[in-house]
Amino acid sequence: MRRILLATLLLIAAPAWGEVPIAYPHGYREWTHVKTMHVKLGHPLHSTFGGIHHVYANKKAVEGLKRGKFPNGATFVLDLLEPREDAFATSEGPRKLVAVMHKDPKKYAATGGWGFDAFRADSRKERLVTKHSAQACFDCHAAQKKNDYVFSGFRN
Amino acid sequence: MRRILLATLLLIAAPAWGEVPIAYPHGYREWTHVKTMHVKLGHPLHSTFGGIHHVYANKKAVEGLKRGKFPNGATFVLDLLEPREDAFATSEGPRKLVAVMHKDPKKYAATGGWGFDAFRADSRKERLVTKHSAQACFDCHAAQKKNDYVFSGFRN
Repeated sequence: MRRILLATLLLIAAPAWGEVPIAYPHGYREWTHVKTMHVKLGHPLHSTFGGIHHVYANKKAVEGLKRGKFPNGATFVLDLLEPREDAFATSEGPRKLVAVMHKDPKKYAATGGWGFDAFRADSRKERLVTKHSAQACFDCHAAQKKNDYVFSGFRN
Repeated sequence: MRRILLATLLLIAAPAWGEVPIAYPHGYREWTHVKTMHVKLGHPLHSTFGGIHHVYANKKAVEGLKRGKFPNGATFVLDLLEPREDAFATSEGPRKLVAVMHKDPKKYAATGGWGFDAFRADSRKERLVTKHSAQACFDCHAAQKKNDYVFSGFRN
């Protein structure tokens, strides 16, 4: 009985797609802001990333952006917010999701050394990425192989 | 002759509106990103701040955002970029200006303890704010007196 209970708890606690969960990126709002984009209806990524997104980089990811090659531990966050459209301005509405891209060449060898996950809205626990969709993340990022699979560039 | 030359150089080096220049905020791109807004044609601030702006806060300004009161040295940057409109997305174009709001209760006693200045595009030297327009900055921020003259709030 105990064993069954333990197995059940592990199933709830672990991400749906494997044994290597990416930790919630605590404190990312004070990491370095890399860039912002507003993805609108009709964009091929709208169903996944429609809205205003900010990309944040931790110190190792900033180092990578400057060198063009990312060290173990480099982490990016894509912070996706609903757009709030007023008459003559667009501002930030509620959070839709927090997507994370984390470099660990051993754990994520099959996907260019990067792991992908996402958390729903303001939840620190509710994960949105399955093994299948993590592969889809990588398939899109694969186009950026020459840039170590990263789309963003840093502008001073 | 030397004296005239020196006076001329000082006139070029000093800001147009007074003896208390605000330093260019070197490194602000790695300060904390507070929020983003896209100001469009028709907005009352469009002629001044039309485009995508990101607000950045230095450590003292982040402290102030959390406490609701800003210490001496707190500095905000409004980084204004041209919007680049594609079919289904808005992204960041060239920089229009870097506006700075810097707390120094002694130097800027007449404007709530905050000094205001701005630098054209990517220039670290070409200032855009006159004594008259610094007063206009403050007149607008005066509406936020209860929040120590700051519009932005920080969202984790």
